[in-house]
Amino acid sequence: MDSLTLLEQLVRIPSDKNATHADGRVEYGVACFLRDYLKKTLPKFIIEEQKIEEGRINLFVHDNTPVSLLFLCHIDTVEEGKGWTTSPSGELKGTRFYGRGSADMKCGAVAVLRALERAAAIKKSGVAVLFYGDEEYDSLGIKKFIQEYGSKLNPKIIICLEPTGGKLRRGCRGVVELRYVLSGKTGHAARSSSGISAFNGLNFSINALQNFLKDYSDPYLGHPTLNVATVRCGALQYRRPDGFIVFGSAGNIIPDYCEVILEVRTVPGLDSQKIKEVFQSGLKGTGVLVETVETKLELGNFVTPAEQLKLIEDVFYEIVGGDMYQDIELGGYTDAQMLAELWKTPVAIWGAKGENHHGADEYVDLPSFEKLENSLEKLVEKWSGS
Amino acid sequence: MDSLTLLEQLVRIPSDKNATHADGRVEYGVACFLRDYLKKTLPKFIIEEQKIEEGRINLFVHDNTPVSLLFLCHIDTVEEGKGWTTSPSGELKGTRFYGRGSADMKCGAVAVLRALERAAAIKKSGVAVLFYGDEEYDSLGIKKFIQEYGSKLNPKIIICLEPTGGKLRRGCRGVVELRYVLSGKTGHAARSSSGISAFNGLNFSINALQNFLKDYSDPYLGHPTLNVATVRCGALQYRRPDGFIVFGSAGNIIPDYCEVILEVRTVPGLDSQKIKEVFQSGLKGTGVLVETVETKLELGNFVTPAEQLKLIEDVFYEIVGGDMYQDIELGGYTDAQMLAELWKTPVAIWGAKGENHHGADEYVDLPSFEKLENSLEKLVEKWSGS
Repeated sequence: MDSLTLLEQLVRIPSDKNATHADGRVEYGVACFLRDYLKKTLPKFIIEEQKIEEGRINLFVHDNTPVSLLFLCHIDTVEEGKGWTTSPSGELKGTRFYGRGSADMKCGAVAVLRALERAAAIKKSGVAVLFYGDEEYDSLGIKKFIQEYGSKLNPKIIICLEPTGGKLRRGCRGVVELRYVLSGKTGHAARSSSGISAFNGLNFSINALQNFLKDYSDPYLGHPTLNVATVRCGALQYRRPDGFIVFGSAGNIIPDYCEVILEVRTVPGLDSQKIKEVFQSGLKGTGVLVETVETKLELGNFVTPAEQLKLIEDVFYEIVGGDMYQDIELGGYTDAQMLAELWKTPVAIWGAKGENHHGADEYVDLPSFEKLENSLEKLVEKWSGS
Repeated sequence: MDSLTLLEQLVRIPSDKNATHADGRVEYGVACFLRDYLKKTLPKFIIEEQKIEEGRINLFVHDNTPVSLLFLCHIDTVEEGKGWTTSPSGELKGTRFYGRGSADMKCGAVAVLRALERAAAIKKSGVAVLFYGDEEYDSLGIKKFIQEYGSKLNPKIIICLEPTGGKLRRGCRGVVELRYVLSGKTGHAARSSSGISAFNGLNFSINALQNFLKDYSDPYLGHPTLNVATVRCGALQYRRPDGFIVFGSAGNIIPDYCEVILEVRTVPGLDSQKIKEVFQSGLKGTGVLVETVETKLELGNFVTPAEQLKLIEDVFYEIVGGDMYQDIELGGYTDAQMLAELWKTPVAIWGAKGENHHGADEYVDLPSFEKLENSLEKLVEKWSGS
């Protein structure tokens, strides 16, 4: 099957965790497709299935020799979202292929299939791939992999197929995701002192965080950034059985409830503890209380020194050329960080050109996609096992 | 029926516009109770029903002579809300009567019934009451009254029974309530430039408004205040048929949607136009757009000069004594403002002591309630018709 057809097939399979997938099997269809394809075309590879949770699996594909070159490829995507002018299920337009997951990172899945095919063709041993799930949500897939293989493997290099705009990236900032429930006291808006506005608490805390993060920076990882992802604030009436929160509709009631999910991309020196302290400091004097604070994610950062990536750099120059490294601050967190931390293995992140992953009209640039495939094939050819 | 029993009966009748009252009859039960009570006890008064909307009525009670002394009493309440430690349907504890509407303003309804009874007993003509609906929501009741009677009446004084902590108030700030829908663009939180955060737009605009309002003030009406009543912000997935907005659950998506209801208590010089300008200025440079802005309420302010309230002051000194006027800034908007503006009639706002109207554990202080009844009876006795 040619690469564009493979990519089309993968993009057509929904693999996001949205409200219409009540059974939550998320990336199961993609895993099945890849498993079937590999069984048919590369029967000598061993495909180990790891159960992430009911109906969800990772595929660990290896040749039964010690793994030296490990490709990392997540097979879930973010939700479709709104505002698409092209088809989220896949649409070819000129030299761009649009669709949810086209860039992040189903094109990467195709490229690593090509790399496995090359390894089989030239009988290069030690090449393996982890296709894994839940990367965009709670990192359950990589955690499951580490649980089973963390102490059994020791690869020499890891290539992670996250989108990098056709360049290389050799690190990522950390992530702290927090969920807060703040409580105030309802009252009459005409008399501020009759209530405690939960929104004011949020406003002060976000201002405090923005101010605090502004002056933070790291020579390799750049600046931290804050995303306030969701806010639900109002005068709480009740929760419906389906989980929806019903607020009063009157503008004259001081809101007593504020639920917020926020995420900070961190640099060294910043962790959830510090962020919580600053958030809390914003509430001082407002009377607003933290009812719940939940650390939904806390992930570290990493930087691989360039001198550990000589072979990768050589292949990049030969196939792609030009400006090599992407600014680390421009890239997302990658689960490869957990493996870098665990094994101290050098990690290169390498994806094709494209735009709008996580937004509307995500696409991958097809010439860059082809260069990525060629690069991974070349890397397998040149790979010496160390 | 004694006054406490009457108050208990009125508080037990739900009269708020919450989600469980799908038929939206709101204050209908209270209107029926008052109508039946008046028909039975004061048959000489004329009770005119005004239809506000299907199943909702005002009661205009008068003696068929020109109205000179007009009592204003709304019969709806705000929603029950959360956090009650007493019964929202009414609970006597010592010298306090707890319940939604106990202070705001069903105790006032009882007090004006007593005033009407006194007027009937001493054959004082020109005393009238408007029991009206929808005060806590969209002021539909008073607007209906003005539509039918605005050009037919010319009372000499208006007493409005809003809670004032047992004091007198002679004015109120205005109200501007706005509903905004802001739009940004989803993107990946790791790369701020990949999206436009609708939350950031809100945050900047609220900061701009807070700063702007801080330095505003009026010698009689005090300072303006801002209440951000509800916020719903996130990466929009879809709207359910029942109106609920479904957001993505991932913390790593930049939110493209923010819906907010805000309310400003205004002083002279401030209107919706000015407030919108300042809000808009906060969005400058963020890329966030205003999709919708809806002026849900725009109501003016008023101040009655103290020298027009001599008789009221005399009665207050005689029955209540002590500190007379409540700080206008501490009181809510009252629909009486519309009549003050229309007829240039002096208005006194006069309610019993109590707390927590619009919050949990609303109550009225019973000794103060009794003084209010005595005061209104005394006022009717002393009333000369001009």
